Amino acid sequence: MPLVGVIMGSASDEAVVQGTVNTLEQMGIDYEVRVMSAHRTPERVQEYATQARDRGIEVLIAAAGGSAALGGTLAAWCTLPVIGIPLASSELKGIDALLATAQMPPGIPVACMAVGGWGARNAAYFAAEILGLRHEKIRQAYEDYRRELRER
Amino acid sequence: MPLVGVIMGSASDEAVVQGTVNTLEQMGIDYEVRVMSAHRTPERVQEYATQARDRGIEVLIAAAGGSAALGGTLAAWCTLPVIGIPLASSELKGIDALLATAQMPPGIPVACMAVGGWGARNAAYFAAEILGLRHEKIRQAYEDYRRELRER
Amino acid sequence: MPLVGVIMGSASDEAVVQGTVNTLEQMGIDYEVRVMSAHRTPERVQEYATQARDRGIEVLIAAAGGSAALGGTLAAWCTLPVIGIPLASSELKGIDALLATAQMPPGIPVACMAVGGWGARNAAYFAAEILGLRHEKIRQAYEDYRRELRER
Amino acid sequence: MPLVGVIMGSASDEAVVQGTVNTLEQMGIDYEVRVMSAHRTPERVQEYATQARDRGIEVLIAAAGGSAALGGTLAAWCTLPVIGIPLASSELKGIDALLATAQMPPGIPVACMAVGGWGARNAAYFAAEILGLRHEKIRQAYEDYRRELRER
Amino acid sequence: MPLVGVIMGSASDEAVVQGTVNTLEQMGIDYEVRVMSAHRTPERVQEYATQARDRGIEVLIAAAGGSAALGGTLAAWCTLPVIGIPLASSELKGIDALLATAQMPPGIPVACMAVGGWGARNAAYFAAEILGLRHEKIRQAYEDYRRELRER
Amino acid sequence: MPLVGVIMGSASDEAVVQGTVNTLEQMGIDYEVRVMSAHRTPERVQEYATQARDRGIEVLIAAAGGSAALGGTLAAWCTLPVIGIPLASSELKGIDALLATAQMPPGIPVACMAVGGWGARNAAYFAAEILGLRHEKIRQAYEDYRRELRER
Amino acid sequence: MPLVGVIMGSASDEAVVQGTVNTLEQMGIDYEVRVMSAHRTPERVQEYATQARDRGIEVLIAAAGGSAALGGTLAAWCTLPVIGIPLASSELKGIDALLATAQMPPGIPVACMAVGGWGARNAAYFAAEILGLRHEKIRQAYEDYRRELRER
Amino acid sequence: MPLVGVIMGSASDEAVVQGTVNTLEQMGIDYEVRVMSAHRTPERVQEYATQARDRGIEVLIAAAGGSAALGGTLAAWCTLPVIGIPLASSELKGIDALLATAQMPPGIPVACMAVGGWGARNAAYFAAEILGLRHEKIRQAYEDYRRELRER
Repeated sequence: MPLVGVIMGSASDEAVVQGTVNTLEQMGIDYEVRVMSAHRTPERVQEYATQARDRGIEVLIAAAGGSAALGGTLAAWCTLPVIGIPLASSELKGIDALLATAQMPPGIPVACMAVGGWGARNAAYFAAEILGLRHEKIRQAYEDYRRELRER
Repeated sequence: MPLVGVIMGSASDEAVVQGTVNTLEQMGIDYEVRVMSAHRTPERVQEYATQARDRGIEVLIAAAGGSAALGGTLAAWCTLPVIGIPLASSELKGIDALLATAQMPPGIPVACMAVGGWGARNAAYFAAEILGLRHEKIRQAYEDYRRELRER
Repeated sequence: MPLVGVIMGSASDEAVVQGTVNTLEQMGIDYEVRVMSAHRTPERVQEYATQARDRGIEVLIAAAGGSAALGGTLAAWCTLPVIGIPLASSELKGIDALLATAQMPPGIPVACMAVGGWGARNAAYFAAEILGLRHEKIRQAYEDYRRELRER
Repeated sequence: MPLVGVIMGSASDEAVVQGTVNTLEQMGIDYEVRVMSAHRTPERVQEYATQARDRGIEVLIAAAGGSAALGGTLAAWCTLPVIGIPLASSELKGIDALLATAQMPPGIPVACMAVGGWGARNAAYFAAEILGLRHEKIRQAYEDYRRELRER
Repeated sequence: MPLVGVIMGSASDEAVVQGTVNTLEQMGIDYEVRVMSAHRTPERVQEYATQARDRGIEVLIAAAGGSAALGGTLAAWCTLPVIGIPLASSELKGIDALLATAQMPPGIPVACMAVGGWGARNAAYFAAEILGLRHEKIRQAYEDYRRELRER
Repeated sequence: MPLVGVIMGSASDEAVVQGTVNTLEQMGIDYEVRVMSAHRTPERVQEYATQARDRGIEVLIAAAGGSAALGGTLAAWCTLPVIGIPLASSELKGIDALLATAQMPPGIPVACMAVGGWGARNAAYFAAEILGLRHEKIRQAYEDYRRELRER
Repeated sequence: MPLVGVIMGSASDEAVVQGTVNTLEQMGIDYEVRVMSAHRTPERVQEYATQARDRGIEVLIAAAGGSAALGGTLAAWCTLPVIGIPLASSELKGIDALLATAQMPPGIPVACMAVGGWGARNAAYFAAEILGLRHEKIRQAYEDYRRELRER
Repeated sequence: MPLVGVIMGSASDEAVVQGTVNTLEQMGIDYEVRVMSAHRTPERVQEYATQARDRGIEVLIAAAGGSAALGGTLAAWCTLPVIGIPLASSELKGIDALLATAQMPPGIPVACMAVGGWGARNAAYFAAEILGLRHEKIRQAYEDYRRELRER
C-alpha cells in the first residue's frame, strides 16, 4: 500500500520525476505515480487529493513547471503534507515554477524543493524525513543514507 | 444581469480591485464581485466557475498575489475567457504573481495584465474589448473612452 | 474570411508561431498571418490595425521578442482584443518580452500569454474562448478539445 | 514537551517569527523558540540540531534572511524535517533568502515556504500537517482551521 | 528653436523628467517638452516623430515606465537619435521599462539610460555629447561641467 | 580617417562585435577596432579615450560582458558619446553587463544597447544616427537602410 | 598610518559607509576615507590606487551603487586586495551594483560583499581577516569580536 | 606546506575548480584540494575549518552551487579569509549561488567572486593579492602576471 503519491503535471515531466521514484525506492518507501494537471484535469486532482488520506497516502509530491499550480491545488483539496518540485520545463527555466510553488498564501502551505533534478531527489528525502517520524524502517533507511553520505 | 465576474483571492485585495470595478462602471458593464481563494476555498471557485456561463457571465477577472493560482483555477474549471490581475501583495511585490499568471501551460490560457493597479484597470478595458464584439453599447463606450484618451 | 490576425514581428519567429496556426486550425478558426514590425514597419502595423475591424477581424495575436512592442502598438491603433505572445528570441530569453507585453499602461490592455511555444498555443486557445462567445461552432470546438484534454 | 523547535537567525527577526508562534499556539502545538545563527554561532546550531530528536523535537522551523544558511545547516546536522522561512531582512528583500532556502543540493532537503509573514504562518501550518500524521489532536486542530477557512 | 524634444508618456512622469529639463538648461540647450503616449496617443507620437527633423530637432529624449514603448515608437517613426529614460512608475519599479527600452531589435536603436532620476539627468548629458559634435557652445558647456565634476 | 572607435574588452568578443563592424561598413562609416580592457589594460583605455577626439573619432562603441566597465571607463576619460554593447559572455548571460552598462551615475552617460548580437548591430545604427546629424552621406545611407527595412 | 583606504563613489553614500568606519574602529584598524568616482574623477582613482601600496595601504574598500565600477577600477590600477560594497542607491536597489561588483573578468578580482549596510560592516571584518594574517593585534581584535558574537 | 585550501562542495565541481588550481600553480602558491559539503559532511567542514590556521593555511577558497553554504560555513568555523566561488551547477545557473555567497550577514564575511570559471580563476588571483601582503614571492608572481596582462 503506497505511502507517497507522486503526481506530475505532464507525462513529459517523467524523466525528472524518475529521480524522485528512484530515491523513494532507495529508501524502501511504497509509492504510486500519477499524471494529472491542476489546469487540464482539475477533477482528477480534486478526486485524488480528497481521497488520498483515506487510501493510506501520507505524503504527496507534486512536480510541475510554469505556473506550477499542481502542488497548491493538491494542498487546497486535502490536509496531507504536499512537497512541490518546481520544474524547468517552461522557457523561463524554472524561476516561474519556483516562485509559484514557494509563494503560497497563508493557510495552505506547500514545501518547495529546488528546481528540477535536485528537487526531485530531495522531495523523496524530505518525504523520508516526514515518514520517518512514524515509520521506524524509513527513518532507519534515511539515516543509513545520510551516514553513507558522510562517509563517502 | 452581470456579464463580468470579478473575483479576488482575499478581501485584502479590495483596494486594488476597486480600479477594476470603477472601470467596468465607467464602461457601463454589469458585473458582480466575489472573494474566493483557489487555495482556501477551492469548492467555491469550482462551483462559481462551472456555473458562470449558465448564469450569463461572459468574462471572468481574477485578482491574486503570490502563487496567484486563482486565474488558472477558474480557467481550469470553465471555458470562458479569464483575465488575470497579478497583485503585489506578497513580499516579492508581484513578480511572483506575474509569472504565475502568465506562464500557463498549453491548453488553459489566462490573459495576464500588468501587476497591481495598472492591471486592475486594464482587466476591465480588456473585458470591454471582448464584450464589445457582441455588445454594441460596450464597444461604443470603450471607443468613446479611447477617443477621449487621444483627445485629452 | 479570417476572424483572427496573427502577426509576428520577424520572419524568424515563424517556427514558434506555427504553434498558434496549428491550434487555430485545430479549432476550425479562419485566420491570416502577417509579418510586420512595430519598429521596422510601423506604417504597416498602423494600417493593419486600423483596418482590421472593418475587414472582419475580431481578435489580433501578436508574437514578438525583446522590447516586444508589437502587441502594444496594435492595441494602440485599434480597439480589438490583442493577445501577446512574448518570444524568447533575444539573449535575455523572453523575460524582456514578457514584461514588455504584460506591463501595459492603463487604458490600452494586451493579454499576455506564456513565453514561447506554450504561449503560442494558448494565444489560439484564448482566441477560441473569446470567439466562442459569439461563434457557437468555435465554442463547441474548444469545449471538445477541453473535454478531450480531461479524458486523455 | 515541545514538538517543534522554532529557530531564528537573529533577534531582529522576532516580529516575523511571531506569526509562526501564534499559529503554532492556534494549533495547540508545543514549541520552543531559540535565536542562533548558522554563521555567528555554529556550535549552538550543531548542538541544538544533533540533540533535537532525542529531546523529543519532531519538526524544526528555521527563519533567516540573506544567505539564509540556517535551515540548511540544521538539516545538515540532523534528520528531522526542517522547514525554512526566507526573510526579507537584507537589502535584496528576500529573493536571496528564498533561493538559498529552496536550492538545497540532493540529499539534504529543506522545505521552503514563502518569503516573510506568509511563510512564517505557513511554516506552522506545514508543521501541523506533518505532526498531524501521528498526533491526532493536531490533525484535528488543523482540519478545524481549514474547515473554518472554507466557511469564513 | 529647440534642438531637443523631451517626450514623456504621462503627465505624472513630470517630476522625474524635471531632471532632464534642468540639465538641458544647465548646458544651455534649447528644448521643448511634450506629453504623449505610444499607446494612448499613437498619432501624436507619429506626427511628432515624423516632423521632428524638419522642425530642427536633432535629438529626442523619451521617458516612459512599464512597457515603455515610447522611445522605440519614436525611433520607429524617424531617424534621429532617440535616448530612452526607463521610469520606475509601474509596480515592478523600472526593471520592466529598462528591459523594454534596451532590448530593441536590430535596425531601430534606442539609447537606454539608467532607471529614473539618474537616467533623466544623463539623457540630457548624452544629448549634450551628441549635440557637442556640431554645436561648439554645447560641447564647451558639457566640458565645463565635466571639468567642474573633476574638480569638485 | 576613422569616425568610430569600436572597442572590445576581450579578443574572445570578436564574433559578436563583427555585427557592429559589418553594419558600420554597410553604412559606409570609417572605423577602427581595438581590443582593450577597463580592468586588464586601464592605461590603454585612458590613453585611447583621452586622444580619441583629437584623432578625429566622433563616436565610441564599447562591447563588454560581466561587470562591463569598458563603456563607463571610456566615458569617464572623454566627452565623446559612448555606446555600450552588453555581452552575454559571463555565466549570467548578459543581465550583469546590461545593468552595468545602463545604470551609469549622473554626469557620465553611456548609451546602452540590447545584449549581444542585436545590440552589436544597433550600436552601429545608433552611431549612424548621431553621425548623420553632421555627415550627410551617413544620414543618407541610414535612411536608405531604413527605407529598405520598411519595403522589404 | 592608515592600513585601509575606504573609498566611496559619492558623498551621498556616507551614511552606509559609516558602518565600515565604525567597524574598522572597533577592530582598532587605522584607515582613511576618500570620496572619488570611477566615472566622474577617474584621475583621482588612478592616482590614489597607483600610490596606495607605497603609502602603506594594504587593503582597499570601495562602496558604490548602480554600475558600481569603483571597486573594479581600483583593482585595475593596483594589486592590493580590493573589497567591494555594492550600494542600493539606484532605483534598482542594489542588484545592479551587486552584479557589477561580483562579475569581474578573470585577472582582476574584487571581493564582493552583501548589498548595503550588511556589506559595509562585513567589508571591515573581511579587511580584519586579511590584515590579521600579518598584524597580530588585528587578528586578536577580530577573534575577540567573533568570540563575543558566539557568547552573546 | 599549503597556504591555500581549495574546497569544493561536490566532486562534480572539479572541472570548474581546475581553473583555480591552475591559477594557483601559475602564481607558485602551495595549495591543497578537498571535496566536502556544508550540507552532506558538516563535520568535515567544521574539522577542516577549525584546524586550518594551525595547519598553516592562510586563505580558504570555497566553490559551491545552489544554496552554496560552503563558503559561509567555513567562515563560520574559522577566522581566515574565505573566498567564495558561486557555481552554475543548479538549474538556476548560478544566480542562486551568487546571492547565497554574497549576501552574508554582518560579522561573518565571505568574498564573493564571479559565477563559474571567471570566479574560479579570480579566487586564486585574489588569494595571491592577500598572500602577497606577506609573501614577497607571491606578490612578485602576481605583479608579473598583471604586467604581462597589460602588455599582451
